[in-house]
Amino acid sequence: MIYHYLEALNAKRIILASSSARRKEILDTLGLKFEILVPKFAENLNQDSFEHPKDYVVATATAKADEVRKRLSSQDQVGGAPDLIVACDTCVTLDGKIYGKPIDDDHAAQMLTMWSGRTQEVISGVCLTHRLSADRQWRSNTFSETTSVKFHTLQQDAIAAYVRSGEPRGKAGAYGIQGPGGAMIEGIVGDYYNVVGFPLHHFCKVLLPLLQSSE
Amino acid sequence: MIYHYLEALNAKRIILASSSARRKEILDTLGLKFEILVPKFAENLNQDSFEHPKDYVVATATAKADEVRKRLSSQDQVGGAPDLIVACDTCVTLDGKIYGKPIDDDHAAQMLTMWSGRTQEVISGVCLTHRLSADRQWRSNTFSETTSVKFHTLQQDAIAAYVRSGEPRGKAGAYGIQGPGGAMIEGIVGDYYNVVGFPLHHFCKVLLPLLQSSE
Repeated sequence: MIYHYLEALNAKRIILASSSARRKEILDTLGLKFEILVPKFAENLNQDSFEHPKDYVVATATAKADEVRKRLSSQDQVGGAPDLIVACDTCVTLDGKIYGKPIDDDHAAQMLTMWSGRTQEVISGVCLTHRLSADRQWRSNTFSETTSVKFHTLQQDAIAAYVRSGEPRGKAGAYGIQGPGGAMIEGIVGDYYNVVGFPLHHFCKVLLPLLQSSE
Repeated sequence: MIYHYLEALNAKRIILASSSARRKEILDTLGLKFEILVPKFAENLNQDSFEHPKDYVVATATAKADEVRKRLSSQDQVGGAPDLIVACDTCVTLDGKIYGKPIDDDHAAQMLTMWSGRTQEVISGVCLTHRLSADRQWRSNTFSETTSVKFHTLQQDAIAAYVRSGEPRGKAGAYGIQGPGGAMIEGIVGDYYNVVGFPLHHFCKVLLPLLQSSE
């Protein structure tokens, strides 16, 4: 849906503020050209101070984008100042509680035991910090995207084998829908890419009018 | 969910009766070891003779599996007779009509124009032909899986750019959710892998009791 803007988009300097290989892969799939800059934000916002998990992930994504924007502004701009900084944060929620990455294999097994037979919500918060409007001032657009994920009933020996494989490590919710963990999932409601870690459709929907207004 | 049976499963001779690179990739992701044998079935069943599109795809998958089973039975079995043959057929339906691969780029553009702003159903039919029970007789299990796919409104210049990229070619419904086409899709209801071309979860759910009974 932004395919016809890809050339215009790729003439701009775009920064993906993320260390996630999966986010890089999703934007690569789209055909986007971008640089990666890993944000130094500590991701230490107090979850309890937010009314809803989506406010928390949007705030975290915004803090990541802000840190990268400030860092770039204070440096010599060899590549020219960027036009667009993309930051994202993804979490899993069940019964209103937020879950991130497992701290170890036991924690991963605990999480998967919780998911068994139940439907969780995967929520991403995204911040686009950009200078795409005519006045070239920095502006930010933020949004969140929620996808429901229904897990099949998981036997303990299946969970143990999955944890042993190392797959859950470093992944929000201790699974990857894009790997063998995908077989545990009966179905989803919403954007698949949001479960992988980046809400591709919503990103394009927000970006499209920004590109159209910068023509 | 069949992770703890992977070793037992990979001790068996498994044939994927499909020329689809995407089906191969999905089963690879699961960690399954298998051979590929392209079915010679002409895929010429009369769609009008089936009450529902899912009956059509199941019948086509069954015909593919049957052809491969008969061909292997008539040959010297260097690798030993197979234990499991997996065949699948996937179509797109809208308003009760079945759509397969586009015949050319114009046809692809017509299909995408039809999908714009609407929700279609992607239906796969699967046939597992196997000798997994104690008596080693051939048996078949078949099933179908449906996933709803909601498309964003697509502008004609976006469709034209997508068609020009060559992406729609050879793909049921003229798009690939696993590529840049994924950005056109607002969301799905059901198994993502079914939209790519193979209903991974349902496959594991049907296979698991067959493996347990063969222990």
